[in-house]
Amino acid sequence: MQITSVNNDLVKETAKLQQKKYRTQSGKFLLEGFKSIKEAFDYGIKIEKVFVDKKHVANYTFFDGDIIETTEAVLKKLSSTESAPEAVAVGFQKIYDKSVFKNAQKVVLLENIKDLGNLGTIIRSSVAFNVDVIVLYGGQSVDIYNPKSVRASVGNLWKIPIVEIKEFNDLKEIFGTFNRVATLPRTKNLLKNYKINLPALIMFGSEADGLSQELTEYSTDTVKIEMSKAVESLNLASSVSIILYELFME
Amino acid sequence: MQITSVNNDLVKETAKLQQKKYRTQSGKFLLEGFKSIKEAFDYGIKIEKVFVDKKHVANYTFFDGDIIETTEAVLKKLSSTESAPEAVAVGFQKIYDKSVFKNAQKVVLLENIKDLGNLGTIIRSSVAFNVDVIVLYGGQSVDIYNPKSVRASVGNLWKIPIVEIKEFNDLKEIFGTFNRVATLPRTKNLLKNYKINLPALIMFGSEADGLSQELTEYSTDTVKIEMSKAVESLNLASSVSIILYELFME
Repeated sequence: MQITSVNNDLVKETAKLQQKKYRTQSGKFLLEGFKSIKEAFDYGIKIEKVFVDKKHVANYTFFDGDIIETTEAVLKKLSSTESAPEAVAVGFQKIYDKSVFKNAQKVVLLENIKDLGNLGTIIRSSVAFNVDVIVLYGGQSVDIYNPKSVRASVGNLWKIPIVEIKEFNDLKEIFGTFNRVATLPRTKNLLKNYKINLPALIMFGSEADGLSQELTEYSTDTVKIEMSKAVESLNLASSVSIILYELFME
Repeated sequence: MQITSVNNDLVKETAKLQQKKYRTQSGKFLLEGFKSIKEAFDYGIKIEKVFVDKKHVANYTFFDGDIIETTEAVLKKLSSTESAPEAVAVGFQKIYDKSVFKNAQKVVLLENIKDLGNLGTIIRSSVAFNVDVIVLYGGQSVDIYNPKSVRASVGNLWKIPIVEIKEFNDLKEIFGTFNRVATLPRTKNLLKNYKINLPALIMFGSEADGLSQELTEYSTDTVKIEMSKAVESLNLASSVSIILYELFME
């Protein structure tokens, strides 16, 4: 199939997937660029169709589904980057159920994380330091299927289960037997001296608000990163990276 | 003074400071929002003038220089954010000379760093972990006075000397007696077992290219962060944060 008009219905329909509302409704999302598409494909993400710049069609022989030959203008419309990628694919979101927690030893919880770049960086560090599952908690988190967070995770999105949990009761059901560590700006427990017992749930608050009262009370233990009094806090992704490295890499 | 037109000459002249060329020519830069302006002022950054939304003039009595009462539209034109801040100030860049290295024990070098968000995050972590000086090396680094990096450093820009060094010969002159540690993806020296001897220069390559051959050869030692083979690398700011925490916080 060939599409050359940015006003084509399928193009307009597909571009809507840049909005969370349409991603949630359809269970689909967008992948931008060869590397991103190929990686998702290799990790078994189901891909529905690929819009490809005519000049680059030969790169996509690995995909035996719908290939739509198209123009730079259409690709620019479909993508969230300033310059058009050579291709944009529509994929199906990967949904995990609670069985991923069955044998999990190292779980990271992010409460209402707001920054897409931070989320991508945290996913990358979590894979690097052997985290088993990432939990997005609280119902106000950014969407991992936002094109920017797909990009920031540079292909690591498929290497680790990421589960959204909205309700506190669901959390309690799953992590009753875990060591639940609240990362806080103020506590006596310094990271350098801290030894973790598994299975462990390490809980991080949002960029703006820190960890909620609810999760602080739910914790069985606390830890903080030692730092100069000259700064208020670290960047969230830096904090998570340091703590995961320190606790999970032996 | 009052200015209400976005086409006013002073407004147009000031807006040019969003571009590196004009910042370099003039030695000036832009500060956006009350917090950013107040912090810079408190750290002794020389401020030339402040454009303030009429409604918020009362917040700026601490500044006894030129206050320009203006409109939201003008502030939006002067700022790099989507919504207009209540004020935008013009400040003078702080220039450091080589004397900052005299008693320095802990120095971080970033080679041709490209991402403004990464730079801001690294500045923040460097202050947190007691780094004495940050060196931007190689002549192709982003500009710390870019509004986005001023924002990402959340006020930490003024708490640590940041020095640009373009030539290898200048580097050699300063760091001849330092332990010079190359951070590399592949080396036998694992961070967990690594002990640092001071004074130390810790060298990080750019996001895309890693550390240059030149700096790798110049190093007296190497170190790497242990990580799963499932990822190629960490985000640069995460790597720097982990290494600084591990080596400089006792």
